[in-house]
Amino acid sequence: MKFIKKTSHKSGLPPGTLVHVGTKKTEKVKITVIDYDEGNFEEKELKNIKECFPYKDKSTVTWINLDGVHQVDIIEKVGKHFNLHPLVLEDIVNTGQRPKIEDFDDYLFVVLKMLYRNENEQETQAEQVSLIVGPHYVITFQEKVGDVFNFVRERIRNGKGRIRKMGPDYLAYALIDSIVDNYFTILEKLGEEIEEMEKELVGDPKPQILQSVNRLKAELLFLRKIIWPLREVISGLQRGESSLIKETTGIYLRDVYDHTIQIIDTIETFRDLASGMFDTYLSSVSNKMNEVMKVLTIIATIFIPLTFVAGIYGMNFNPDASLFNMPELNWKYGYVMSIGVMAFVALVMVFYFKRKKWL
Amino acid sequence: MKFIKKTSHKSGLPPGTLVHVGTKKTEKVKITVIDYDEGNFEEKELKNIKECFPYKDKSTVTWINLDGVHQVDIIEKVGKHFNLHPLVLEDIVNTGQRPKIEDFDDYLFVVLKMLYRNENEQETQAEQVSLIVGPHYVITFQEKVGDVFNFVRERIRNGKGRIRKMGPDYLAYALIDSIVDNYFTILEKLGEEIEEMEKELVGDPKPQILQSVNRLKAELLFLRKIIWPLREVISGLQRGESSLIKETTGIYLRDVYDHTIQIIDTIETFRDLASGMFDTYLSSVSNKMNEVMKVLTIIATIFIPLTFVAGIYGMNFNPDASLFNMPELNWKYGYVMSIGVMAFVALVMVFYFKRKKWL
Amino acid sequence: MKFIKKTSHKSGLPPGTLVHVGTKKTEKVKITVIDYDEGNFEEKELKNIKECFPYKDKSTVTWINLDGVHQVDIIEKVGKHFNLHPLVLEDIVNTGQRPKIEDFDDYLFVVLKMLYRNENEQETQAEQVSLIVGPHYVITFQEKVGDVFNFVRERIRNGKGRIRKMGPDYLAYALIDSIVDNYFTILEKLGEEIEEMEKELVGDPKPQILQSVNRLKAELLFLRKIIWPLREVISGLQRGESSLIKETTGIYLRDVYDHTIQIIDTIETFRDLASGMFDTYLSSVSNKMNEVMKVLTIIATIFIPLTFVAGIYGMNFNPDASLFNMPELNWKYGYVMSIGVMAFVALVMVFYFKRKKWL
Amino acid sequence: MKFIKKTSHKSGLPPGTLVHVGTKKTEKVKITVIDYDEGNFEEKELKNIKECFPYKDKSTVTWINLDGVHQVDIIEKVGKHFNLHPLVLEDIVNTGQRPKIEDFDDYLFVVLKMLYRNENEQETQAEQVSLIVGPHYVITFQEKVGDVFNFVRERIRNGKGRIRKMGPDYLAYALIDSIVDNYFTILEKLGEEIEEMEKELVGDPKPQILQSVNRLKAELLFLRKIIWPLREVISGLQRGESSLIKETTGIYLRDVYDHTIQIIDTIETFRDLASGMFDTYLSSVSNKMNEVMKVLTIIATIFIPLTFVAGIYGMNFNPDASLFNMPELNWKYGYVMSIGVMAFVALVMVFYFKRKKWL
Amino acid sequence: MKFIKKTSHKSGLPPGTLVHVGTKKTEKVKITVIDYDEGNFEEKELKNIKECFPYKDKSTVTWINLDGVHQVDIIEKVGKHFNLHPLVLEDIVNTGQRPKIEDFDDYLFVVLKMLYRNENEQETQAEQVSLIVGPHYVITFQEKVGDVFNFVRERIRNGKGRIRKMGPDYLAYALIDSIVDNYFTILEKLGEEIEEMEKELVGDPKPQILQSVNRLKAELLFLRKIIWPLREVISGLQRGESSLIKETTGIYLRDVYDHTIQIIDTIETFRDLASGMFDTYLSSVSNKMNEVMKVLTIIATIFIPLTFVAGIYGMNFNPDASLFNMPELNWKYGYVMSIGVMAFVALVMVFYFKRKKWL
Repeated sequence: MKFIKKTSHKSGLPPGTLVHVGTKKTEKVKITVIDYDEGNFEEKELKNIKECFPYKDKSTVTWINLDGVHQVDIIEKVGKHFNLHPLVLEDIVNTGQRPKIEDFDDYLFVVLKMLYRNENEQETQAEQVSLIVGPHYVITFQEKVGDVFNFVRERIRNGKGRIRKMGPDYLAYALIDSIVDNYFTILEKLGEEIEEMEKELVGDPKPQILQSVNRLKAELLFLRKIIWPLREVISGLQRGESSLIKETTGIYLRDVYDHTIQIIDTIETFRDLASGMFDTYLSSVSNKMNEVMKVLTIIATIFIPLTFVAGIYGMNFNPDASLFNMPELNWKYGYVMSIGVMAFVALVMVFYFKRKKWL
Repeated sequence: MKFIKKTSHKSGLPPGTLVHVGTKKTEKVKITVIDYDEGNFEEKELKNIKECFPYKDKSTVTWINLDGVHQVDIIEKVGKHFNLHPLVLEDIVNTGQRPKIEDFDDYLFVVLKMLYRNENEQETQAEQVSLIVGPHYVITFQEKVGDVFNFVRERIRNGKGRIRKMGPDYLAYALIDSIVDNYFTILEKLGEEIEEMEKELVGDPKPQILQSVNRLKAELLFLRKIIWPLREVISGLQRGESSLIKETTGIYLRDVYDHTIQIIDTIETFRDLASGMFDTYLSSVSNKMNEVMKVLTIIATIFIPLTFVAGIYGMNFNPDASLFNMPELNWKYGYVMSIGVMAFVALVMVFYFKRKKWL
Repeated sequence: MKFIKKTSHKSGLPPGTLVHVGTKKTEKVKITVIDYDEGNFEEKELKNIKECFPYKDKSTVTWINLDGVHQVDIIEKVGKHFNLHPLVLEDIVNTGQRPKIEDFDDYLFVVLKMLYRNENEQETQAEQVSLIVGPHYVITFQEKVGDVFNFVRERIRNGKGRIRKMGPDYLAYALIDSIVDNYFTILEKLGEEIEEMEKELVGDPKPQILQSVNRLKAELLFLRKIIWPLREVISGLQRGESSLIKETTGIYLRDVYDHTIQIIDTIETFRDLASGMFDTYLSSVSNKMNEVMKVLTIIATIFIPLTFVAGIYGMNFNPDASLFNMPELNWKYGYVMSIGVMAFVALVMVFYFKRKKWL
Repeated sequence: MKFIKKTSHKSGLPPGTLVHVGTKKTEKVKITVIDYDEGNFEEKELKNIKECFPYKDKSTVTWINLDGVHQVDIIEKVGKHFNLHPLVLEDIVNTGQRPKIEDFDDYLFVVLKMLYRNENEQETQAEQVSLIVGPHYVITFQEKVGDVFNFVRERIRNGKGRIRKMGPDYLAYALIDSIVDNYFTILEKLGEEIEEMEKELVGDPKPQILQSVNRLKAELLFLRKIIWPLREVISGLQRGESSLIKETTGIYLRDVYDHTIQIIDTIETFRDLASGMFDTYLSSVSNKMNEVMKVLTIIATIFIPLTFVAGIYGMNFNPDASLFNMPELNWKYGYVMSIGVMAFVALVMVFYFKRKKWL
Repeated sequence: MKFIKKTSHKSGLPPGTLVHVGTKKTEKVKITVIDYDEGNFEEKELKNIKECFPYKDKSTVTWINLDGVHQVDIIEKVGKHFNLHPLVLEDIVNTGQRPKIEDFDDYLFVVLKMLYRNENEQETQAEQVSLIVGPHYVITFQEKVGDVFNFVRERIRNGKGRIRKMGPDYLAYALIDSIVDNYFTILEKLGEEIEEMEKELVGDPKPQILQSVNRLKAELLFLRKIIWPLREVISGLQRGESSLIKETTGIYLRDVYDHTIQIIDTIETFRDLASGMFDTYLSSVSNKMNEVMKVLTIIATIFIPLTFVAGIYGMNFNPDASLFNMPELNWKYGYVMSIGVMAFVALVMVFYFKRKKWL
């Protein structure tokens, strides 16, 4: 059940208590820091979370990335040093959040979902990514190692594009853009699946296809739940109410917003297609049943009267006892005539079915 | 019918008349008081409602809890002392309210529903909880003893978290948070049921499963009716229009608001899944019927013509009367030939069914 | 067709022309006046409408009630004396109005629907009630004698509650409250019907139940059409834009507003339940058909092959003509063997059906 | 296809080019003028459009009516003299407009649809009516002679009602009111059809009824498309933003607005009823099929085993060849016994069907 | 899959990187310039993009049209010279955009979809058209040669209409109007298809029609996705927030807006009709099955009992062994009587079916 996270072991604790909710997806928390401005670049993996504290007030842009949120003490230390609200920390470690944005004046807190597609099980999986956007830094919290940010890292390292000339708000935009771009890839794969399903439905639909359609529907429901709130998140960022987001970055966020709308559009279209497939399947089952019934009806309707005629002349009334008892049996052309009657009945039936367009 | 409370015995009374609407769920009203500030803590059960009156103007935070709302005289005395509007008292004793919030300048009136899950009957039940949030006190009215507030009590007793340092608005938040957290537990259980149902549907669906699906749908309808208005309630609290809610508490309420949205999301998803299950069941019934029809058609279509052939040679036309009358009966290989014809017809049929993919 | 009133005989008349649209439900218009303030109370039935004119400017609260709107001359006289707009009078006599509120500065015009439940025909019927709320008076127009206002009259007579101390706005509230309270009674009865239907559906659903479900759906559609606009009406009253509604009455109207929302909620829930019942019925029909088909298939599939075997040995090939012709007929255990073959075939079939879980 | 007008021969022309789109419904454009104020009244048919030009600035109210919009040169002349925007003229001659209102400061442009019901083909047809409301005049453009305005003309002629005392805004109101009143007549007729259909459905539904239901649905879709935008049109008129609409007329327009809402309500209700009828029909088909299947199953299930027993004793095993071969044939009560066995089997079957409630 | 464009090869690139997304529909980019004012007109095809640069600041209206967006270097040069934002360029070459409008103070960026109908494959195809509307120029980017703008070109060449007297905003309007007008043509064709399908459905529906209905539904989904956002685009243009759009042009845009609403209306109507056709088809399949079942039941139910009677008298009980053994066989009228019994049974059946209205 990926629609709800088990949180029962958590209820009753005071708000702000850090309890990791979710599957522990990695062993040890991996901490990396990328620090840059137009001229300088530094990248390193930290052994201890404290090493990243000095970057807080450095005027360069610092990106602190934590892979793994199950070690709550580390999260707590980060929270303390960067003055994060306890509820923010709670949300970071509770991986059952909806995407959202919260503005705490001196930093922005953004929750997003990064999607992976498990090719074997044909299932989409989500990983929660939390961003803290401060005046000089961006902190990202992921559930495990591995993400869709490599292109961003590459661009920072090589100084490609304008990222090195921009502030942490642009970095945040680049990260969000990576996540949203990745949704397109997921949707493309779903689109291919839908195409294949439609081909199968037109050809020879098996009952199993219904399970695939249902799985697809559940998948789309899952995506929808993740991506709908994204719209509000990005429009919240873009509206420029926070002084942390510069106006020049706003135009870029408007671009991401357009992408989100496109994705939502596509999901709704896919949902329409999926429920169309269900209808098609149902009607194809009806058609098949109809065909089966026709074959049965044609065979039965032709042969039942014939068998009856044969049954008549199989009766044992004694022709010797009376002249009225089955005199046909002794006629010269009795048999030929009976066969003729049967053939006639059969022909009438066939003609009737032809007219009904059953044959 | 848990969708509507019997109120007919009430209509016609002047507004503000206190008549208990609902099931009497407890014998005697139980009154408890918890009074605390950062340094002090006092908890006691009261024999007489009047003992709680002095707490009204005490500067410490006082939580007065009444278990049972069927003794209207007690409610009336509370109302008089705490200056509650007659309509507020009427709403407290009428347990058929929707969740709502009303702002009476010197106090807030909040109605919520606490959910219980009766494991035996697999049914969710609701209990109405009314909160009066005043400048120094919170009064809660419940229908019966037993609630989801024990964790809050514990935190007050132990001084865990920040609750002892905060005012009655934070206490109100903590109580509402407990109620909303409990909804997650209910939804988790429903989620497990849905998972089991889906497994059953894929395996061997019985007609009874439809009843379970319908029960589930009614359950979700019931939850929806309770939880949708909650959204407005909490956003009403959070918007900070009342001077009784401090700004620091607003952030916590925003957290509860997020939870409510998550719950509504999940309910809508569950509703989608439930109606998907209904469709799946219907199509599985269609499939089964199709299969049954195929077996019938195959057997009937193979044997009906064969039986006809046998019937032909069971006719009693007299071979002695004419050479045209069933000469086959006297042929040397007549019987063998007739069996051969039958076998051939049967083979043609089987081949036809193979091609149709019915076999 | 209770969804639309015949108005065709009216079209083409200039606006403001009084033509009674609706069924004439009473013979003569009955006029009663109740006049009161905190100390005084007067109640009388009037012979002539003119007797009520002096109450217009009396400072006491006057409630003029007219049962019957088909005598347009009386309505016209009232309109003239109380300065009502011609369109208001037109709306009063045309009983096909939606609930609405119109603010004419010196009076408010409110149209409502009072519901009756005709127990025999299991049908809900509506009567239009129009209210004119002026500075010192309330005028109500009903279609016929008999209403849900007796409790209000009783309270005025006995001075129970606060009604005698309040103005005409509170009287209007009390009347509207009575009408809305009555809706709960109607909904309770519908709720009971729904419960009974659901029991019947689970037990032994007959095709007739579909008609009941359809009737219920039409009923809910009818209620919905009447009650949805009510929401706006009452929120319009409550919003306090008119100086005729005092602020203290506003709180009471908020209460009625809450009731209206509860009623709308319940109607929507009932509609959901009703369409669920339809689905359940359909699927139960499918299930039954499936069961019928199974019985047919089992019987036919077992006996058709057996009958074929019997048919074989009923053929009249001449054993004397050739050794190949049905030698089994002369075998010692031929008959026993043939019976054995049949029994074996039957057993195989039964086993097959067991495995298919059809038996 | 009345849902879309052929406009293809028009695309590519510059905006404001007058091309008549629609069916030419009348031969020659008929022009009539009614000019009036409280004391004077003049009505005449014009030969040449130019004769109406002097009325433009006359202080009396002038109603110029043109029946026929296919002669674009006439429309053009009117447009030139009355200073109408080219796009307004284009909309007048293109009869595929949605109802709309446009405010050009010195005149209002209103497009409406007048409905006719072709009783023979049971189809509703729409005619476009365009109104120009100026300071002293109203110009109406209709597609053909014949309209619903005769009552208005009569009232102007006779000076009945207040129309002669009011300005062109009231005349426009009266015309719009006539059109909207006419919708009620159309809906009443549809309502009667629906009632008849429902009776037929409950009685003996034939497949043809589905076509009627579909036709009804298309009809309602068509009405909906025409009447929904009307709401905005009239609320736009009523809102009093244009100085051409006096406040006193506003109250009358509010009345028309109420009617529009009533009509929309009724259309939605009818749509609900129509889709309910479809469901009822489907389930009645299912029920019938079920009944057919039951009859087949009962007959087949009773007789197939009996026929098998008869088949057994029709076998020709030679009793002379062995004592084991069908000794029953020679028993004294063999025949009676076999008949008894058959009767017993039949009774068991009947009993079984009784228990299943199939009989 | 035309619902989503492959963009996977693009993800990871920095924003503003120009990568052509879409099918390369033309070989070489074709650049044409039309420059005009009231008195002058110049039209030429450019070899090099640089030739169009001088037009930027010329006070005449210049329309630069590029057919083909796959040569990103050309787009880049245009972007540089006309100061377009990198994201605008990115959107121009990525043909998977939704229609949208963006206001960059000194120019407007509009994305639209031009529709083509491939008559052979009965499929609608979309081509992305991007407009840059500047103070003296309009730049249009198309995917390939061939468009719906020829009428506009003609009007500019001939000075027909008011286009030569107006600014670039009017040119932009004329282009958008051409695109929207073209939608009507597409919808007319779809309307004709729908009419034909409906005729086919009423006549002799084949299973293949379902595929046509599904194709139609997908088509409408596709159109809807393209045209819904158009509404916002044009209302955005019309609202007059940009100084680049003059007020006089606003009226024309309001006209286009009306057209867009009409188109959306028609699409929704078509969608309703399409899902109605699906229902009609399903119920026609049910009806057919019902008819098939009736024929089977009638034939089987009449002949099965007859065959049973014939079977009885085909039994070989020995009349010589006992007087009780089938004495009928030796009766004088035994055969006649048996035939009579059969005829009677058949008549009863026929009568029963007549009463059931199956015959």
